Amino acid sequence: MRIEGKEYRTIWFENNVVKIIDQTKLPHQFVIKELKTVNDAINAIKVMEVRGAPLIGGTAAYGLALAVQENNDPEFSKKSAKELIQSRPTAINLKWAVDRMMKKLAGINSNKILDIALNEAKEICDEDEKFCENIGTNGLKVIEEIYKKKKDTVNILTHCNAGWLATINWGTATSPIYHAHKKGIPVHVWVDETRPRNQGANLTSYELNEEEISNTIIADNTGGILMQRGEVDMCIVGTDRTLSNGDVCNKIGTYLKALAAHDNNVPFYVALPSSTIDWEINNAKDIPIEERNSEELSHVEGIDENNQLKKVLIYPKKSNAKNLAFDVTPAKYVTGLITEKGICEASTQGLKELFK
Amino acid sequence: MRIEGKEYRTIWFENNVVKIIDQTKLPHQFVIKELKTVNDAINAIKVMEVRGAPLIGGTAAYGLALAVQENNDPEFSKKSAKELIQSRPTAINLKWAVDRMMKKLAGINSNKILDIALNEAKEICDEDEKFCENIGTNGLKVIEEIYKKKKDTVNILTHCNAGWLATINWGTATSPIYHAHKKGIPVHVWVDETRPRNQGANLTSYELNEEEISNTIIADNTGGILMQRGEVDMCIVGTDRTLSNGDVCNKIGTYLKALAAHDNNVPFYVALPSSTIDWEINNAKDIPIEERNSEELSHVEGIDENNQLKKVLIYPKKSNAKNLAFDVTPAKYVTGLITEKGICEASTQGLKELFK
Repeated sequence: MRIEGKEYRTIWFENNVVKIIDQTKLPHQFVIKELKTVNDAINAIKVMEVRGAPLIGGTAAYGLALAVQENNDPEFSKKSAKELIQSRPTAINLKWAVDRMMKKLAGINSNKILDIALNEAKEICDEDEKFCENIGTNGLKVIEEIYKKKKDTVNILTHCNAGWLATINWGTATSPIYHAHKKGIPVHVWVDETRPRNQGANLTSYELNEEEISNTIIADNTGGILMQRGEVDMCIVGTDRTLSNGDVCNKIGTYLKALAAHDNNVPFYVALPSSTIDWEINNAKDIPIEERNSEELSHVEGIDENNQLKKVLIYPKKSNAKNLAFDVTPAKYVTGLITEKGICEASTQGLKELFK
Repeated sequence: MRIEGKEYRTIWFENNVVKIIDQTKLPHQFVIKELKTVNDAINAIKVMEVRGAPLIGGTAAYGLALAVQENNDPEFSKKSAKELIQSRPTAINLKWAVDRMMKKLAGINSNKILDIALNEAKEICDEDEKFCENIGTNGLKVIEEIYKKKKDTVNILTHCNAGWLATINWGTATSPIYHAHKKGIPVHVWVDETRPRNQGANLTSYELNEEEISNTIIADNTGGILMQRGEVDMCIVGTDRTLSNGDVCNKIGTYLKALAAHDNNVPFYVALPSSTIDWEINNAKDIPIEERNSEELSHVEGIDENNQLKKVLIYPKKSNAKNLAFDVTPAKYVTGLITEKGICEASTQGLKELFK
């Protein structure tokens, strides 16, 4: 998608280096960063210059190609693979991408090994882009239906960033929105700020601005009254993990929006590539919920009157804070799952039918 | 209640001046400010050095006493009364307190007029304190019931600041909590940060800290999963306006917590003095919802590494934001209304029985 009028993917290879958009600098600065070594890639994942499961996977794949470029001894690749997997142990796509790369490279000793590694990394990214594109064309149908009835701007609420910046391109929750916009359907997006890390404001609103899609940031508290007033036609969010029974684990606060949507008869959709379905767990209580540093709550970063990045403490010095990163939305509050293969009911049955 | 170990009310008269706690400086600085003239009082209300309907009423009453102290010409009092009422036109208690003062002072020409004015202002504050105390003893019963069953720390979630800093003393939603704590019942409070103005973090957590009541600030997104996990035993919030049918208008985001409480069988109480009941309106759609400056969302104030107050822009420069200040929680999601006269059902019937 576009930034400052130019088309990008979130990661690409050019002149012997891997290039990424440094997402820790957004939205205040747009910086393209070069990764020259596998260690650069590991670090980019660790410090969250890249984030979002699909993009982390893509970065790990290119990271392994960089390892091959540095040193084509298979032992070095093995060591690098291990380190890459450990850079953020909980991301499913990370291990999957590294394993796929290692399988492809196994036993290859020719001077073609770098080309093969780079091709496979690009292939992994291309596939993710295609998945997200399909999510877009499938979700587009829902937006089209609403537009046909309403014949006026379709108001869509989203939470956090399940946008193209979290993937290689298109995003998951945003992909139907981008497809609708490209088709000329007037859309307006309510963007939940998404405390504590504000990825809604920092990333989703940022990327929608750059694609010139009308959007308005709201406090996470605001979605309820907007739905009561009929100012939300549908919700679309992403997910970190979808259980085999259709329960959806996503960024903290998603559950509250699903409740409000249910209470006001607003359709609530979850967009996901099938790679995030967890076929093993079917009880939400078994999902480990990440608890992060409370400083993400008590301190906020922004730019001051001199355009300088500044971090400030916003809480009383004596106060404690608790920072849970995810919550679980029971399947009964989810209108449908928008996947690369089509839309299905959020249930064991619905998922089984689509992914036999 | 206490700040830095010393007992305070939010407003008092001492050495010919009215003293207030400058709430724009909290939680980072504790500053007592002197109001010497009626204009000082008007300004304190306007710039929100004092806030919360009961405290605004008390400040207006003392403001009129200051007017009398400056100039005991009845014309000056009349002019001052008008200006006070206009300082924040929507606060119901403001006009009520000024009218009561003017009625008391009407026709008095003796040199006792200042004493009478000061006594009446103190009386208004004393009455509010008594109302809040009664809300506390009534709400205490609910906490006691939970404690009897659970025999362990009672976890209470609150939203925004309906604390003593919004009243003269005790607060509304916090009063049952303070009473339980004083009685030795172990309580822990989950404090919703309450974006965009963060009054939960800035004021509620601050005042609970100063009373040494265990509390934890959470993002507004977090209450849902805490309730799913059984980590919330009850919710208590305040209200800006309660409709005669029991619907509750309160700080934006209250509705989402009420939905989560309902979904998880957590009791959801609203604490209020009967003065905030709106006997005229019985349709939530007729309540005007204040929309405030979007800068309250896009800019955040805190202290930097040099302990200096600093305001930073946290949103992308191109982004728009919408800042609705209140939402409405339908009566069906409210377990009960805790008032100075007792606890009643949130319904026309319930309110009528208690306030015939």
